[in-house]
Amino acid sequence: MSTLEFFRLQTREEVLALYPRFSPVGAEEVDLDDALGRVLAHPVSAAEAAPGFNRATMDGYAVAARDTFGASVGAPQYLEIKGEVPMGAAPVRPLLPGETLRVPTGAMLPEGADAVVMVEYTAEHPDQTLEVRRAVAPGENLLTPGEDVPAGKLIFEAGARLRPQDLGLLAALGITHLKAYRRPRVAILSSGDEIVPVARQPGPGQVRDANAHLTAAQVREGGGLPLLLGIIPDDFGALRAALAAAISDADLILISGGSSVGARDLTLAAIRDLPASEVLVHGVAIRPGKPTILAAVGFGSFLSESGAKPLLGLPGHPASAAVVMEVLGRPLLARLSGLQAAPPWGRTVTAALSRNLAGASGREDYVRVRLRREGETLWAEPVLGPSGLLSPLVNSDGLVMIPLGVEGLLKGEPVEVRLFG
Amino acid sequence: MSTLEFFRLQTREEVLALYPRFSPVGAEEVDLDDALGRVLAHPVSAAEAAPGFNRATMDGYAVAARDTFGASVGAPQYLEIKGEVPMGAAPVRPLLPGETLRVPTGAMLPEGADAVVMVEYTAEHPDQTLEVRRAVAPGENLLTPGEDVPAGKLIFEAGARLRPQDLGLLAALGITHLKAYRRPRVAILSSGDEIVPVARQPGPGQVRDANAHLTAAQVREGGGLPLLLGIIPDDFGALRAALAAAISDADLILISGGSSVGARDLTLAAIRDLPASEVLVHGVAIRPGKPTILAAVGFGSFLSESGAKPLLGLPGHPASAAVVMEVLGRPLLARLSGLQAAPPWGRTVTAALSRNLAGASGREDYVRVRLRREGETLWAEPVLGPSGLLSPLVNSDGLVMIPLGVEGLLKGEPVEVRLFG
Repeated sequence: MSTLEFFRLQTREEVLALYPRFSPVGAEEVDLDDALGRVLAHPVSAAEAAPGFNRATMDGYAVAARDTFGASVGAPQYLEIKGEVPMGAAPVRPLLPGETLRVPTGAMLPEGADAVVMVEYTAEHPDQTLEVRRAVAPGENLLTPGEDVPAGKLIFEAGARLRPQDLGLLAALGITHLKAYRRPRVAILSSGDEIVPVARQPGPGQVRDANAHLTAAQVREGGGLPLLLGIIPDDFGALRAALAAAISDADLILISGGSSVGARDLTLAAIRDLPASEVLVHGVAIRPGKPTILAAVGFGSFLSESGAKPLLGLPGHPASAAVVMEVLGRPLLARLSGLQAAPPWGRTVTAALSRNLAGASGREDYVRVRLRREGETLWAEPVLGPSGLLSPLVNSDGLVMIPLGVEGLLKGEPVEVRLFG
Repeated sequence: MSTLEFFRLQTREEVLALYPRFSPVGAEEVDLDDALGRVLAHPVSAAEAAPGFNRATMDGYAVAARDTFGASVGAPQYLEIKGEVPMGAAPVRPLLPGETLRVPTGAMLPEGADAVVMVEYTAEHPDQTLEVRRAVAPGENLLTPGEDVPAGKLIFEAGARLRPQDLGLLAALGITHLKAYRRPRVAILSSGDEIVPVARQPGPGQVRDANAHLTAAQVREGGGLPLLLGIIPDDFGALRAALAAAISDADLILISGGSSVGARDLTLAAIRDLPASEVLVHGVAIRPGKPTILAAVGFGSFLSESGAKPLLGLPGHPASAAVVMEVLGRPLLARLSGLQAAPPWGRTVTAALSRNLAGASGREDYVRVRLRREGETLWAEPVLGPSGLLSPLVNSDGLVMIPLGVEGLLKGEPVEVRLFG
């Protein structure tokens, strides 16, 4: 009765392996102050060295290290104080043998100096003589030019997501603008005759469009720009027209295809009827989330410009849609965002399972869990309930995955919890 | 020589224990679509039940469960099909004994029905008779009114940070506006005669204001609104005037006090000279980050309106400033944001230390680490380098803390890595 029957369920890995066929979005110029979390669209090299000069890292005295050799409390060396290096300016004079200048932390060292003696190991005498009680080695208590970044060094590859310290380094090098991938524009369509906008009071048999808001927020978390395109009735022509419009507007199309088989089949038919569309996946071996669709869709000139765009058909139950977005939607957004290789760890925490948990035979099972600390132990407590409900998701902190082919997990077993938010 | 000498270093815990004296910022009305990550300023209860009616969770037939009792493949029960419930509408008629209506997933059940028989366990005969091959219990394959949320139920406490699923539930209940705490406004001041704006080419002895951009991005990550107030020369009057202006504008004042003892003393004197200011902390037992200042500052009428505001004096070295923001700045922002109790876990991952690591005697030590996966093992590799450099921070994925009083950590030991970003 359903077209689902004729499709082989695909594994999560098989679905993810299809993503390289979709191209990252284009680039745009971004101000340094707006670049947090953005993905670099080009490699960045340092045009100059940082720091640009020998800098003191301690309050003290600029010296030629050799002038301090042999100095100790019992046998100090004496140097002539020739003044002070002001902050943010070049030293007024080079250092000659036997001389020193006072330097605050961060100041530029004079020519002839190759070390800083910390103020703690000195005493100033009234005749402008400095008593040095400890020898320093060349290079001690200073940063050399290019020690942070040598001129010309590649500092970021294309595809890097920019963190606070990355912006700090770009600022240090005087880079105030950069090219980043656009945030992917993500169309969100809700289909279903029973769905009404959130601001409207539902009539009998009607429900508000909660999924669109849940999905939009997940898109935002994943670095995309959600476009809430509204509710489409369960009608082939309306669905097809709405999809075609979405494809011309967005880089990724998300459609919640209704939870009944009839509504899903209608969505699938509308997708198939789009020019140059190809249904790649219809049914994924995950629970919840089985009735997920992945298609490559093109429309008129868009196809030739940037290749086919991905369309993800989300299940109608909110918990299923949320899991599919976490497991399949986020990596797709990452691909479109131009992000290079995910880090070798996730937003996870290890916890002990609070009870035995049976897996879903033949599917990867995603179980909602709440975290609770009890003394030294962090417990992951399964939060059960039909996937048509939102409150179990609200009461959870993350997901535990029971792999394909694993019958279940035992109470007390350490599990990796993929954290929400 | 430094006023630091006269202060006892305070532990991280001692500093955090001072935060309750600062009040959260005020509230503002926020649209549901802009509410991701915002902190609720009031508790939210459900004004109505969700779902509002008995809803089918499977494609099938609405029945009175008792009409199916005893049904099996060998001895089916027969019911009269009286039509179909359309999606998004009330059923046209109630169910009488011996009758059934077709229902798609998500549809409203008619009066008289208390279960749904899945389509898989039925056959329709040409005479509008339904053959039922399996009994169902009352309540099977449906959601009851209020099963997700009963009317009147408290769904969120004040102080909750809103995640995607939370927005989904609010949407389901028709809540399109809510009151959230404002994002704290965070003034960022850079002091130091050697500092120039990022867009300017530094002269001899000058460096660009990298810290302000690093700190601003950390503020943004923590949910605050950074106000980049610029660079203040090392001058008592200028510092005092800039601080007074920042206090009237912002909920939290961050000042990078220069890395030399002279610059720090000047900053401290300017803070002390503000009316109603109180220096609470001068020196924290963490490394890097020792020369950190926490003050409560009031200015004119602001004091009486909302109590004293916090001022955090950050160390001048970028790695030190970044660690202080992670360890002390984030919790302070959370406090001002109205956030209730941090979750019982962090943004952490467990990894094996790749080499022995000595701690900083008498201080909590924060070591930058890079994560590297090798087979099944996730290694945390210390990234060393003076805290005046930015590149070790850029090359790191997080921080490992060596607790106070611990001499060091051993190679291979599992460590908790606090992740950046």
